[in-house]
Amino acid sequence: MMAFEIHSQLLIDCRRLGKFSLCHVLLHKNGMVPWFILVPETDVTDLLDLPEPLRSTAISEAATVSGFVRKTLGWPKVNFAAIGNAVPQLHLHVVGRKPGDACWPAPVWGNLTETREYSAAELNNIIELLERDCDLQRGLR
Amino acid sequence: MMAFEIHSQLLIDCRRLGKFSLCHVLLHKNGMVPWFILVPETDVTDLLDLPEPLRSTAISEAATVSGFVRKTLGWPKVNFAAIGNAVPQLHLHVVGRKPGDACWPAPVWGNLTETREYSAAELNNIIELLERDCDLQRGLR
Repeated sequence: MMAFEIHSQLLIDCRRLGKFSLCHVLLHKNGMVPWFILVPETDVTDLLDLPEPLRSTAISEAATVSGFVRKTLGWPKVNFAAIGNAVPQLHLHVVGRKPGDACWPAPVWGNLTETREYSAAELNNIIELLERDCDLQRGLR
Repeated sequence: MMAFEIHSQLLIDCRRLGKFSLCHVLLHKNGMVPWFILVPETDVTDLLDLPEPLRSTAISEAATVSGFVRKTLGWPKVNFAAIGNAVPQLHLHVVGRKPGDACWPAPVWGNLTETREYSAAELNNIIELLERDCDLQRGLR
């Protein structure tokens, strides 16, 4: 079996943080909003085509990140989407949002023009909190 | 218990087609792409906060519509999202997409500038196909 490879565009846009049981956990490099991207290890391209129990597992892992965005990072709202028009590999967006954020109320895709880089300390902190709160496996990043 | 009411903005933007066991089924009035919106009968505003078994039921009903968009309507790809920044009531977008469609590869939100109205015959046909293929309950529209 071929090793699973994350699409090159996702690796350009994001940092790899680690892995859950099914999904690789990426963080979009633009830190204006907490924008996580989960990549399930599958060849299926549309979320709603994913057979059970994979679909439930992927959604459950997205829900874990959603809870993290709200409770640990303190963002009140989460946008969730599986689009994949530009990058065909299945990936799930879990994006923290709040009124007044950098592109509120527009969706982030194509509208988050302002950018901010995470510092190394911020990234390490997010990874450590995900390990503590969500059982992120860091060794697999 | 108060009767469940669909948000007024969704009723402005969409036609009501009917209901599944949990979700009301709406169709966006812009017929450039098949853009279904499912509204689960709940007060929870974020999909990933929806407690089980409601979350699985909502996703399963969205998957039913996704299969309909692909197999019956013949669109090869489906975008799925729960955003809700402008309309806070939880609603799930299930949008048929194909390369070369009216705003490919951009997401539809904010980018589908071209419009097309469904004819009454087209709408009736979609409802009849949803009844036949997906057990849509028409009486509840």
